[in-house]
Amino acid sequence: MNNHYLNQGCSFEKVSKNILKKNSHCNPWLSFFNQQDSEHQIFSLKQNDIIIFDVNSKLYIILAGCLIVKKVFRNRKKIILNVLTSEDSFGHTQFASNRFYYEVEALDVAQVLSIEYSIIMNICQNYPNFSVFLVNHLLLCSIKANHFMEIISHKSITNRLISLLLLLSEHNGISQNNGILIDLTITHKVLAQIIGSNRVSITRIISKLIHTKFISMQKKKVIIHDPILLSQRFSNR
Amino acid sequence: MNNHYLNQGCSFEKVSKNILKKNSHCNPWLSFFNQQDSEHQIFSLKQNDIIIFDVNSKLYIILAGCLIVKKVFRNRKKIILNVLTSEDSFGHTQFASNRFYYEVEALDVAQVLSIEYSIIMNICQNYPNFSVFLVNHLLLCSIKANHFMEIISHKSITNRLISLLLLLSEHNGISQNNGILIDLTITHKVLAQIIGSNRVSITRIISKLIHTKFISMQKKKVIIHDPILLSQRFSNR
Repeated sequence: MNNHYLNQGCSFEKVSKNILKKNSHCNPWLSFFNQQDSEHQIFSLKQNDIIIFDVNSKLYIILAGCLIVKKVFRNRKKIILNVLTSEDSFGHTQFASNRFYYEVEALDVAQVLSIEYSIIMNICQNYPNFSVFLVNHLLLCSIKANHFMEIISHKSITNRLISLLLLLSEHNGISQNNGILIDLTITHKVLAQIIGSNRVSITRIISKLIHTKFISMQKKKVIIHDPILLSQRFSNR
Repeated sequence: MNNHYLNQGCSFEKVSKNILKKNSHCNPWLSFFNQQDSEHQIFSLKQNDIIIFDVNSKLYIILAGCLIVKKVFRNRKKIILNVLTSEDSFGHTQFASNRFYYEVEALDVAQVLSIEYSIIMNICQNYPNFSVFLVNHLLLCSIKANHFMEIISHKSITNRLISLLLLLSEHNGISQNNGILIDLTITHKVLAQIIGSNRVSITRIISKLIHTKFISMQKKKVIIHDPILLSQRFSNR
């Protein structure tokens, strides 16, 4: 895998300020930080790019795309902790120890904003509306983390995969005539990695879902024809 | 099981104001809410007492004890989402749908503070220091939720159980001459329920851990003799 690593100082392709200003009205974080002239950086990540946290004091906010958070132990064992989609955030003060560190991998192209933790706290002190926004955001993140917990708590791999596809369609879905297109190119290997399975099982389940017309493929992306029907037929059995 | 339910209006035994004032200096939430005279309630829960959320707009803060959060589907299927210990919180605006609701069960005696969400937001607007405290608290909660995710992501039930015991010893442990006493009386059945196993397996693993002298029992409570050794020997293999 051709991973690129962002390790504190080193930099990914930074997005030009002009492009950002154009989009800032759609994103409450961006519009606020630009308005207050708060120092922040924005990174464009390609598929499989990885951000590593060994020491840290930054908050990262996903502007676009889909990423997975992993805890990596010094013995190389990795645990997937969450799937992040647009508007999610990650980052806290206690990032690593001599036993482990965290990394975040882009499942497809993504844009991530990073801002110093101390700047965020300073804004909280001075802008009550931002505090309320941030508190609401963090509460929402905890609900989204529960969704991932729910995926993993299914014993059946089929149910895990369907729950994951439904989660992705909710956050990265585009409505089309024939259903919801999940706007991400994710390999079966990566899907397997996320839900704790193997590539062969994922390929078998995907084929079965295509055969029974619950989903179909369009240019390597999944279309769910009827999310409600799919969730009723398979999940929570 | 002789569960007691707290469903919005109905009330558990409320703790007398005098006892609270005595303890409020130890807890930052309590001391702040008392100081500001913010309306809040405190409940004492017995083992297996359950708080149900079908509609809600409150934040719940654990003052003492250990509780498990479950998502309950209308078809009765339950998923354990997290283990909460003292200083954790739970609660958000979107609590239930016609497909599911949440419940929280006390694993042993516990004390929980509840406060209206609107009051919390009002305090955030007016007390910047409280906002910073709350944001830090929510970030810390997300780290603790990751710990539970880590437990469940182990494939081996032995590793899940050891990770859970280590987590409980970290948050409910009392240091003793012979190790760390987990100050909770939890049945093997409940341990099994938390980590997605069965009572027989838990009893077998516990017996093995006692036999190999990693743990011992004291009045139905677990003592971990050397948490670091236990984590090195079993976890993250």
